[in-house]
Amino acid sequence: MTARIRIGIVGYGNLGRGVETALTLTPDMNLVGVFTRRDPATIRPLAETTAVHSLEALDGMCDEIDVLILCGGSKSDLPEQTPALASAFTVVDSYDTHARIPQHFAAVDAAARGAGTTAIISTGWDPGLFSLQRLYGEAVLPQGETYTFWGRGLSQGHSDAIRRVPGVAAGVQYTIPSDDAIERVRSGARPELSTRDKHTRECFVVLAEGADADAVREAIVTMPDYFEPYDTTVTFISAEELATNHAGVPHGGFVIRSAETSAGTTQTIDYRLALESNPEFTASVLVAYARAAARLAASGDHGAKTPFDVAPGLLSPKSPEQLRAEML
Amino acid sequence: MTARIRIGIVGYGNLGRGVETALTLTPDMNLVGVFTRRDPATIRPLAETTAVHSLEALDGMCDEIDVLILCGGSKSDLPEQTPALASAFTVVDSYDTHARIPQHFAAVDAAARGAGTTAIISTGWDPGLFSLQRLYGEAVLPQGETYTFWGRGLSQGHSDAIRRVPGVAAGVQYTIPSDDAIERVRSGARPELSTRDKHTRECFVVLAEGADADAVREAIVTMPDYFEPYDTTVTFISAEELATNHAGVPHGGFVIRSAETSAGTTQTIDYRLALESNPEFTASVLVAYARAAARLAASGDHGAKTPFDVAPGLLSPKSPEQLRAEML
Repeated sequence: MTARIRIGIVGYGNLGRGVETALTLTPDMNLVGVFTRRDPATIRPLAETTAVHSLEALDGMCDEIDVLILCGGSKSDLPEQTPALASAFTVVDSYDTHARIPQHFAAVDAAARGAGTTAIISTGWDPGLFSLQRLYGEAVLPQGETYTFWGRGLSQGHSDAIRRVPGVAAGVQYTIPSDDAIERVRSGARPELSTRDKHTRECFVVLAEGADADAVREAIVTMPDYFEPYDTTVTFISAEELATNHAGVPHGGFVIRSAETSAGTTQTIDYRLALESNPEFTASVLVAYARAAARLAASGDHGAKTPFDVAPGLLSPKSPEQLRAEML
Repeated sequence: MTARIRIGIVGYGNLGRGVETALTLTPDMNLVGVFTRRDPATIRPLAETTAVHSLEALDGMCDEIDVLILCGGSKSDLPEQTPALASAFTVVDSYDTHARIPQHFAAVDAAARGAGTTAIISTGWDPGLFSLQRLYGEAVLPQGETYTFWGRGLSQGHSDAIRRVPGVAAGVQYTIPSDDAIERVRSGARPELSTRDKHTRECFVVLAEGADADAVREAIVTMPDYFEPYDTTVTFISAEELATNHAGVPHGGFVIRSAETSAGTTQTIDYRLALESNPEFTASVLVAYARAAARLAASGDHGAKTPFDVAPGLLSPKSPEQLRAEML
């Protein structure tokens, strides 16, 4: 594969822009263009040279694009788009509704097998790199427990929930992994921990004019499911402070496997992501899996795949010989 | 693959015993026996039920064994044994002489292709799981640096070097990763660090009767290559303390990828192993790759492989459907 891999981006929100940026760091790929449901004339891409087309323009472009990177949302975009586009293109997505992955896989697999394309779904970091750690950890150390912690990170769903509280002008929520819980896991104690035990929630809120701070705080910390089960703190800040200190989209977390290989012999695998930009990181994972998808498609290995099915070497632009000599 | 995978262990030192132990935790594998160059009558396996045979007994056992797990040393055993045995059996090894991996791969590949067997080499943790982290980190985040730190861990080679110093009755050496260097890497500063900058060395020494402690300390800390380039501490202890507190073989380390996805946006992947038993952990990795080797061989995918070539899902006893539903 000496020719560059020709990439199309479908959807141009934070994730699509992250893919556009990530492609500037990969010498083996070319961006053919961005494909959007919006009016292309209204889109201003990060690079002036990036072509912007309507989604319909993809019709008949099979021969000009090797892989489409799908950057829509998991709630309504990807369940439609991934199977539909896999029936004409090799694709990758970051579908992240864990409970519905088997259904998504089945729909995409049928489309891809029918069309002779390759579709790698649920890349990204959870699902994605975190899933790989859970799998390697359990396969290598069968007698133990795996713990996944999320954060410190901005939670979009919880931030939206805060903003719906009367008296809130703006706000963000961070999910924080509990240091105490992480230390207990690392100690080898293998505690039983609920999601609640493992995380706390930090809210930064800008009050609406005339709003009662105590009432807003109470409404947040008692909100069922979202905040009530957690140790939640609410800090009131100005709109300026929100704009200055809370504009980023950091995230990350831990996957820790704590296990025994014989009585009393503890082995710990501890994986951590500390991401200053969640969408840029997810985009970078998508781009690496797009490389793998192009290679699998070229070798005739069609149908739906997940990161579990993709040999690690396929993600790297280096040859197998180079990888063995330099990285093993 | 509903029948159990039939395993033979070749070589019965710490690593071979670790494999025997690890196999007791895997319901999908049966141990056929241990094969040794020593007189089988002199070997006492961990489990009474474990059969011990001479290495020659392998002749003609192709139909009784699915995978041989090779537990010899990388210096002289594996360069001979892996190609020789791959010409009749599917095998896995933990060959760890990084600089000679390409030659080893070529020799094993020729033997395995000729015989129609599958051989996964250089499993374990470095090479092995650490190599996978280096690869995933660079493939996902191409613009950055990867740092590998070893320890805290017992170094066999450095312990041997101590024991050759006149006046030393016994001793062990631990390689310690520098906390300061790790913190600099985690900060996103991407420092240039030599192996020396990243590690210190701790020696625990039992003096021979009448030996001069100062002379022994001086001989150790000034030893070229082994200790002179490092910040080395020497602590004198009694034979009893050595036996009580330094009988284990702990090891581990860190692989950290520090990178940018756009100007000023740092992303960090931080992988740590904390192993109370290095040989038991390496053995556990070998066993997981033996499962993958059996599956690759059964599917007709022959020749030499490394962990880079093996799809993660092949390591798990769970089916692809189960993995997608439970672990993705």
